[in-house]
Amino acid sequence: MTGGYGLLVADLIGVAVFAASGATAGVAKRLDLFGVAFVGFVAALGGGILRDLAIGSVPPLAFADWRYAVTAVAASLAAFWLHPTLNRLRRTVLLLDAAGLGLFTATGTLKAIAAGVPPVGACLLGMLTAIGGGLARDLLTGEIPVVLRREIYAVVALGGAVLVTVMHRMGFTGLLPLVGAAGLMTGVRLLALYRKWSAPVAAPRF
Amino acid sequence: MTGGYGLLVADLIGVAVFAASGATAGVAKRLDLFGVAFVGFVAALGGGILRDLAIGSVPPLAFADWRYAVTAVAASLAAFWLHPTLNRLRRTVLLLDAAGLGLFTATGTLKAIAAGVPPVGACLLGMLTAIGGGLARDLLTGEIPVVLRREIYAVVALGGAVLVTVMHRMGFTGLLPLVGAAGLMTGVRLLALYRKWSAPVAAPRF
Amino acid sequence: MTGGYGLLVADLIGVAVFAASGATAGVAKRLDLFGVAFVGFVAALGGGILRDLAIGSVPPLAFADWRYAVTAVAASLAAFWLHPTLNRLRRTVLLLDAAGLGLFTATGTLKAIAAGVPPVGACLLGMLTAIGGGLARDLLTGEIPVVLRREIYAVVALGGAVLVTVMHRMGFTGLLPLVGAAGLMTGVRLLALYRKWSAPVAAPRF
Repeated sequence: MTGGYGLLVADLIGVAVFAASGATAGVAKRLDLFGVAFVGFVAALGGGILRDLAIGSVPPLAFADWRYAVTAVAASLAAFWLHPTLNRLRRTVLLLDAAGLGLFTATGTLKAIAAGVPPVGACLLGMLTAIGGGLARDLLTGEIPVVLRREIYAVVALGGAVLVTVMHRMGFTGLLPLVGAAGLMTGVRLLALYRKWSAPVAAPRF
Repeated sequence: MTGGYGLLVADLIGVAVFAASGATAGVAKRLDLFGVAFVGFVAALGGGILRDLAIGSVPPLAFADWRYAVTAVAASLAAFWLHPTLNRLRRTVLLLDAAGLGLFTATGTLKAIAAGVPPVGACLLGMLTAIGGGLARDLLTGEIPVVLRREIYAVVALGGAVLVTVMHRMGFTGLLPLVGAAGLMTGVRLLALYRKWSAPVAAPRF
Repeated sequence: MTGGYGLLVADLIGVAVFAASGATAGVAKRLDLFGVAFVGFVAALGGGILRDLAIGSVPPLAFADWRYAVTAVAASLAAFWLHPTLNRLRRTVLLLDAAGLGLFTATGTLKAIAAGVPPVGACLLGMLTAIGGGLARDLLTGEIPVVLRREIYAVVALGGAVLVTVMHRMGFTGLLPLVGAAGLMTGVRLLALYRKWSAPVAAPRF
């Protein structure tokens, strides 16, 4: 199917972008070549692995379809050698990352729904698909996950997952609504970056 | 069933208490509102998710029954706004945490037995149900897990899990023995806190 | 079967060695007796648990067969009391660790193949079986995983997993090729230690 093929290409673009972000974090922490590739792999595919385990889809796609692993490792190795260039391309990377956020959330939510997960759980798993890799990347490099600390990132995913779930309930299925929801999330994420929106932090009073 | 309903209420109280402990840790680390809710969710439901994955019960209860996620998030948000009050209620929180420890261990062990896990594995999974969320909370907030460092906490869970398994083998089933074992664990945990019991630490001689 | 029994003994030796390495790391971080045993358990069995979850073999062997958990805990407790001796035995520990690396990779890869995982995924899961426990050990003790930072360790596992997969494809099955591949990995790992081989690190230029 053209639809399935388009989705695969979109998915692999998300994998490559998230892998490059993980690999760049690994380079910054002075990991070796293997470590950089490993963190890139986990950043790109960790969220999807978690989702697949939770919906009982084993082996997870990251191990079942070689194109995912190869894309993640290739993008990580490219980042290892090209990372100064990546920094100059910072705006492009943020744009692609926002696109990955939207796509991973939309496909993750729909996969959870298709596996029979009820709406609230499907939204949570859709969000985890998008943010799980970044969480694992930060844990592996010894950081408190950035997604928990600042910026509007996971909330965009959660809102988008709710939108996808509601649309699915209303009978909108197929590629178009999915791409629409992913595009909306990408736009909101870019707007949040541009406007420097951030979530409130409590003042600890201990 | 009244029994099932009583168990659900007990389970949700445990979820709320563990979520509040996770959320408070998140506030102390200056996470944003989303981060606080996320760490609360993981602290409350991470142990059960791990257990459900290990016994092949997918999707895990945290994603299959919306009441768990909603309770965890509501308790986390309450802790976000009320955390100075929570500190004044420190004794109450420790009491509820001890009750959560007992209940999560007892129900976790029985679920593992019901899924056909042999006794030693069921005890380990019962303990992991109770301590897994706290482990994940500490990893997400950049701490070496407190349960590995001091105090009698996990050992109470392990001992309680053995007791539950032995009682199950001897034919004691139903709500009463479960509540009895949970109550005993809660009591021992509170005694350990009151008497400041702690496990031995080796003097590193490198 | 003699073959199955030999494999079990080899597997349990790997478990004991990895548990001792985890427990020693726990002692160095001044964890208490429970924490040391827990980190030892995770270091020995974490990689296998991850593999079993990914291939849908639930409950994972670590919970299904009590001999694994008991071996891991016994070796951890031994390390807790004997750790100064372990340091004097550093060369022996490194030798056994290299043997564990080879054995865990070989058995992990074959289990993934037997579960129907395609070649690339089976190689990744074989490697994860061998390095997953060490990764979890380092995360639990607040370190950036050493396997990502230096030395030739995971790459030996990955190369060995590819060899095992190719041999399996070519029809070499049974105990002998497995032991041969494991022995080869052990030898390469020891050579890498002796020659102080390490993977390249990128100079971060941000």
